[in-house]
This record gives sequence, structure tokens and C-alpha cells, in this order.
Amino acid sequence: MRVSAAVLVIGNEILSGRTQDSNLAYLATRLNAYGIQVREARVVPDVEQAIVDAVNALRERHDYLFTTGGIGPTHDDITAECVAKAFGVPLVVDEEIAGMLRRRPAPPEVMQARMRMARIPQGGGLIRNPHGPPGFHIGNVYVMAGVPQVMRAMIDALDGHLRRGQTIRSRSITANLSEGQIARRLGEIQAGSPHIDLGSYPFYRADGYGTTLVMRGSVDAELDAMLEQVRRMIIELGGRPTDELRS
Amino acid sequence: MRVSAAVLVIGNEILSGRTQDSNLAYLATRLNAYGIQVREARVVPDVEQAIVDAVNALRERHDYLFTTGGIGPTHDDITAECVAKAFGVPLVVDEEIAGMLRRRPAPPEVMQARMRMARIPQGGGLIRNPHGPPGFHIGNVYVMAGVPQVMRAMIDALDGHLRRGQTIRSRSITANLSEGQIARRLGEIQAGSPHIDLGSYPFYRADGYGTTLVMRGSVDAELDAMLEQVRRMIIELGGRPTDELRS
Repeated sequence: MRVSAAVLVIGNEILSGRTQDSNLAYLATRLNAYGIQVREARVVPDVEQAIVDAVNALRERHDYLFTTGGIGPTHDDITAECVAKAFGVPLVVDEEIAGMLRRRPAPPEVMQARMRMARIPQGGGLIRNPHGPPGFHIGNVYVMAGVPQVMRAMIDALDGHLRRGQTIRSRSITANLSEGQIARRLGEIQAGSPHIDLGSYPFYRADGYGTTLVMRGSVDAELDAMLEQVRRMIIELGGRPTDELRS
Repeated sequence: MRVSAAVLVIGNEILSGRTQDSNLAYLATRLNAYGIQVREARVVPDVEQAIVDAVNALRERHDYLFTTGGIGPTHDDITAECVAKAFGVPLVVDEEIAGMLRRRPAPPEVMQARMRMARIPQGGGLIRNPHGPPGFHIGNVYVMAGVPQVMRAMIDALDGHLRRGQTIRSRSITANLSEGQIARRLGEIQAGSPHIDLGSYPFYRADGYGTTLVMRGSVDAELDAMLEQVRRMIIELGGRPTDELRS
């Protein structure tokens, strides 16, 4: 069974180029370990309509939607209200989060700002984590922090909570050949095994060019068979196969 | 005048987590230097319908759409046919690209594979670059390679070709204060200058936590005034302002 997900990265800093997102790659790898395949990702600014529209489009098209960013205490943290709007429910104070926030003493003005982080859409559940205030989930949408170490703790906390599908495994092998040299044979190998996704990634380095071939699928025996075909192809085309990996 | 853009990253390897995308951050920074603001980004797999739908959605909503990935010679390189489908035009052989490809000798089978890279949507123009076969543009859509050094050469080649809008400049300053401590005052500063985008980015490091405040806008005097307000706020709240940057 396939379980699909989308990732929605929320934040002006990603679209301005100030911050290099690393959450998508991490989430994709981690979710695959849970048997969930990321099929689409979007990055939107801290703008209400953009967030609401993306949440609604993505939650309808995939089994799960994971969002990162916009759940802190400042004026530009608007993810919680946007997700509430997307679901058409009010934003309510969660007493468990409020209690956690009150435990750390602070002047009233600071406490009031922090309390923004206690608001979740009505009917939502919490994504607890050791770093601080929880994220939340509602329906098939999981709302997490943008700061990578906090996001990672949150996705760890979801282990066992999410529906598991097939884990996709991979094989990869590198050839000191150009894509043009291998293209025809590679297309034939792909056509012969449509259940496996065979990707071709060229590179150009100081020590020469080459192509890495990546096979992704759920059946180990099929992957091993294709890896063997690709390795033979590289040798028959006069290349040298290197850097063989399995995961 | 504002000129907006979307970025569409095409490729299974980004959604599987195998490859960390760096093209979006680079493009965002480079396009801002051209006076073009990236307002949205999407990542889609090497799947025809997903690419066609995303191209059509994004080209209608923004002044420009820049795509990366899927323009090589192998079976998984389907961006050119998808863009042609999105525009409802046939894919045709571009004689300039075909001539370039023929200049480097190769066995017929390899040449035939390479010739895939000579096909562009009818009516399109070329994005020439020193690394190899050109990318192309049609309407407001610019189709570039996924390999970062090739993509960078292509976006460099577009300097002077694209319509220029306002360049967004920024100021940033860091405080050894939490977001909770500054949230209320920061919200007031933002409310007083709605034309400037004031973002707040918390961090947690071995040597302590803090928050970086980033101001983005098109008028230097307004940015300088807000920077001064934020610096005063940090000091009044008992913090120490550091790492002041202008760009």
C-alpha cells in the first residue's frame, strides 16, 4: 500500500534566499523510513491567503500534509490561524500547552506573547517534543516548527502515530560515462521494469564527469536484478561501475 | 514596480531526499538582484501530469516562472515535452542546438540520445550557456538545468533579458533575546511600518540562544529607520545587538 504526503514549507526567509531550507530533504528521508512517500512540496510566504490555499490544496491531494515554520510567538507566525481557517474551525487555547508555558516564569508582556503558542485549531492534537511548545495536528495535517532541530524532534515524536505504507528502498551505482552514452540502454532497462523508478543524475567534478543511476522500488529482488542489469550495461559500454549503494 | 516569480523544481531526487536542493535559494538571491521577487516555489516529481499542472498554475499567477531539472537526454528528462503540452504547442527540433550537438562526434546511438536535448516547444527561445546545450524560454516560462553549475550559468545568461522591478534590500540584526521577549515590541514596530517586511528568526546554538531580525523593503531610508528602532528595542529590553548586516 502506498501512503503519500506533501510538505509545505512556510516562510519568507526561504523565498528570499536568506535561509537554505533543509527540512524537506530531512522529512523526505525520515518519512520514507515510516513508509510514507513525499510526492509534492511547496514553499509559500508568511501570507494568510497563500498558506490557507496551499494547506487546502495539499491536504486534499495526499494522505498526509506536513508543514514547517510559522508557529512561534511573533507577529509573522501565522500558521496556526491559517490552518484553523483552512479547516473552518476556531483557534482555541490548549490548556496543556498553556500550563507548560506558564511554568517558566516571565514578565506579563513576555508571557502574553508566549501564549500565542498555546493556540491550536479546535479539535487538534499535540506533537510533543523535548525542545519546547508542541506542534499540533488536525485531520491529516501535521504542523511543525521551522527550526530544524525542533522539527526533527517533532517528526521523531510521530513515530508509531502515522499510518505506515511500503518503504521504498534504493540501489545506486555510478558510471564514468555521460548521460548521452547510456541514455538508450537505460531507457530500455526502465521500460522493462516499470515498477522501479530508474533515475539518472549527471555530475561534473574536477576529476571528471559521470552519471549516478538510482533505482527506487519496494521489492528488493527487483531492485537487485535491475542493479545487475545496470552494472552490466556500464561495463558493456566501456565504463567502470563504482560507488554502489543499497538502502 | 513589483515583478514576481515562481520557481518549479522538477525531480524525484529532491522529493526522495536523495538530493538537497540548492537551486531555489540561489535563484531567489540572484533574481532579487534583477529586481524580481520569488513569491512561491514548488517541487514536483518526474511525472507528466504533475509538471504540466504546476507549469500552468504558476505561469498564470506570476510574472515569471523558472523551472530547474529534467532537460537532459535520458528517459526521465521530460520537462521539454511537458512545457510544450502546458502551452499546447508541438515540440520541435531547434537547428542551432542540433548543430551544437552534432559538432561533438559520437556513435549514432549516443547522438540520437543527445538529440533529445535539441527539442524545444515551438516558438521558444534559447538560454545559451558555456556548459553545453541551451535551456529555453517560452512565454513567461524559463526552463533551466537541474545541475547547479549549469543552472547558474543559465540564470547569469538571462541578465538584461528579464524585466526589472524593484530590488528588495535588507537589514538584519541579532539579539541575545528570545522571540517571546521581543514579540510585543516587534509587532508594534511592524505595525508602524507596513511597507517593510520584518521577520524574526530564532536560533539555538551551543553558545546560547537568540533571535535574528530581518527587515526587507525597497526604500533604504525606511529600512535604516526601522533598523534603528529595532536596535533601540534590543537595548531597552536588556539585550545586546550584534551582527548587523545591510544588503
